Amino acid sequence: MQSISRDAHQSGLRVGFVPTMGFLHEGHLSLIHLAREQADVVVVSIFVNPIQFGPNEDLDRYPRDFDRDENLCESCGVDYLFFPSVDEVYAKDSTVFVDESQVSAGLCGVGRPGHFKGVLTVVAKLFNMVLPDIAVFGQKDAQQAAVIKRMVRDLNFPVEIVLGSIVREPDGLAMSSRNTFLSADDRSQAVWLNKALQLAEGMVKDGRIESLALESAMLNLLDKKAPDIKSEYIAIVDATSMKPVNLVCNGTLIALAAYIGKTRLIDNRIIEV
Amino acid sequence: MQSISRDAHQSGLRVGFVPTMGFLHEGHLSLIHLAREQADVVVVSIFVNPIQFGPNEDLDRYPRDFDRDENLCESCGVDYLFFPSVDEVYAKDSTVFVDESQVSAGLCGVGRPGHFKGVLTVVAKLFNMVLPDIAVFGQKDAQQAAVIKRMVRDLNFPVEIVLGSIVREPDGLAMSSRNTFLSADDRSQAVWLNKALQLAEGMVKDGRIESLALESAMLNLLDKKAPDIKSEYIAIVDATSMKPVNLVCNGTLIALAAYIGKTRLIDNRIIEV
Repeated sequence: MQSISRDAHQSGLRVGFVPTMGFLHEGHLSLIHLAREQADVVVVSIFVNPIQFGPNEDLDRYPRDFDRDENLCESCGVDYLFFPSVDEVYAKDSTVFVDESQVSAGLCGVGRPGHFKGVLTVVAKLFNMVLPDIAVFGQKDAQQAAVIKRMVRDLNFPVEIVLGSIVREPDGLAMSSRNTFLSADDRSQAVWLNKALQLAEGMVKDGRIESLALESAMLNLLDKKAPDIKSEYIAIVDATSMKPVNLVCNGTLIALAAYIGKTRLIDNRIIEV
Repeated sequence: MQSISRDAHQSGLRVGFVPTMGFLHEGHLSLIHLAREQADVVVVSIFVNPIQFGPNEDLDRYPRDFDRDENLCESCGVDYLFFPSVDEVYAKDSTVFVDESQVSAGLCGVGRPGHFKGVLTVVAKLFNMVLPDIAVFGQKDAQQAAVIKRMVRDLNFPVEIVLGSIVREPDGLAMSSRNTFLSADDRSQAVWLNKALQLAEGMVKDGRIESLALESAMLNLLDKKAPDIKSEYIAIVDATSMKPVNLVCNGTLIALAAYIGKTRLIDNRIIEV
């Protein structure tokens, strides 16, 4: 993989990289299109990274369909599909890790200790394997995007981070590989996550910018309309630092995580005032 | 710096990198010559990395002489001297670090907690700033070399690590920027560090390969001949993993750290049987 990228660089070509865990959906494809627009050579990786899953998380049941992914990549004009095995990525006696202490601490960092250490370590490794000029991540994982941007800044990776907007189902549910786990009833309740974000967005447009008021309105809506949703957090934070803000302003991130049954979903909105 | 290296790569040239903390001596110059031999473009960095010094260590009095270093680099055919300021290297709100949990735990890691986290973080940053094909480090910092090699493996840095042999004063003292701190009396005692390593080497040649016997012979010699030396550790370990060995074999590292007054010196030998 390194020598493919080096050859591209020597020919003056820009390498665009879309790291994924596979089971691709329209969200991933939109990231691939972004990479296609901004780079000459497009590399997609598929790697379900074990070290970003906690002991009680869904590593074993994470959905996989390599043949389908491969066909989708081909039809999107992906130049290289990079799918290393776990043994190729991690030595049995790996002892070096990348970690972040502040942007990763709140939100998903609370319920998933070690998650972002796993994400940063594998992203640092993949950057060094793929040597991209730009890397495209989804805004759906808003905190992940902020943590990776912080790593790129603090470790001086020569990689430009590009974020792709959230892609939604027709009814507004954010696309996720994990949506495949939802029963029909779960699925109909899941749509209320986005509706709660819409409610908050509407309130801000009407001048209600107090985070506490927005949060409680969102929780109320979820309680009423989707009683089986167990909210893990609603966070109203600065989109770069992930620090809580009391009053929403332009660029504030409203993010949430919730369980529907065993399935954990996340969604968010960057507020434009 | 990144664009200089990118231009070199695009012209098919190999970039060789020698990271230093300045106050260059013959040891550094030998590393520069190694880089000169194995690469087309030679980059030397001078950066006294604050985060690898503990609160009670010698950051403030670490010796500096930029003009002399610059002249030495010029006379050795260095192509680029890279000397970023602390503010350029570290954002005030840096939160991302690289750390290692095993190779860095013993030896110097015991007396200098956080030291190797600081070393790995700055080396990762410098690798991403300089984008070298090869990087040259000194064997004198044997544990540092092993920890950096582990990082390169575990984070897949596209950099070949080359080690340069220890360069010694005529009487055998390993060259170090910190030797400048030694008084005349300290200086005459310091030579016994190398003599203790020589003693162990001789014993191994005579078939005495038990680590315990070697260690106590070395300590005895130091006690007798250099009473002002306060030994911090003597370690007999595998040179890659830094795990202690009971019996010396080919490639075993014998390493020591000691204080002479306030000055901490290290030295080592890789045993060839």
